[in-house]
Amino acid sequence: MSCIFCKIIAGELPCYKVYEDEFTLAFLDINPVNPGHTLVVPKKHTATIEETDEETLCRVIKTVKKIGLSLKKNFAVPGYNVQVNNDPAAGQLIPHLHFHLLPRTGSDGLKLWPQRKYQPGEAEAALEKLKII
Amino acid sequence: MSCIFCKIIAGELPCYKVYEDEFTLAFLDINPVNPGHTLVVPKKHTATIEETDEETLCRVIKTVKKIGLSLKKNFAVPGYNVQVNNDPAAGQLIPHLHFHLLPRTGSDGLKLWPQRKYQPGEAEAALEKLKII
Repeated sequence: MSCIFCKIIAGELPCYKVYEDEFTLAFLDINPVNPGHTLVVPKKHTATIEETDEETLCRVIKTVKKIGLSLKKNFAVPGYNVQVNNDPAAGQLIPHLHFHLLPRTGSDGLKLWPQRKYQPGEAEAALEKLKII
Repeated sequence: MSCIFCKIIAGELPCYKVYEDEFTLAFLDINPVNPGHTLVVPKKHTATIEETDEETLCRVIKTVKKIGLSLKKNFAVPGYNVQVNNDPAAGQLIPHLHFHLLPRTGSDGLKLWPQRKYQPGEAEAALEKLKII
């Protein structure tokens, strides 16, 4: 087993455990954006959202909600971001699906990614490729 | 009804619709980080993850997976980020729960938020407040 998160799940590596149930584990990111930064992972190894079965995704998002409630109640933050870096091109460092919960203080100065307007015709071209219906 | 996303869901405002089912809607963000930037929303109005029932969260994450598959297949991107800005302190502008899917090109130069190391004792203090078990 070479996956570091699988080793944490198996108890072979330590973690700061926030929550655990039969299917998911939540633990502190050791390199936090802000203190309390938590990762939620499925126990079953899977790398990306597309590779993950729907039942597992549901279990993970339910645990994300639990951690969000704890952040609000026990950490008293006014908000948080949930983020999945899906694939190395999106900044994924550990190839085991993980949902980041980033507590936000309201004064941490973190900036969201810059957004812009579509140029004429550009949104239509994107939609033509992307739409499922 | 004052919620702009509820108006889009009701067909009172237009959108670039990517996908729709009984419970969720996916449409292009009109101010994309990258072209193809898509929002997934539950049709039932709810502002934050904590306020949203588990069944609805499951439906939303299933639609997120569908869009992720379409981004990979039809948009040919090597990765994407999924992000929820939960509450104004986390950058939420529209108070109707929405999951961003941000296609990443591998060369877009976007940077993740800066991470750091915990100071001694800091992780333990965070865990003490946050842990659910």
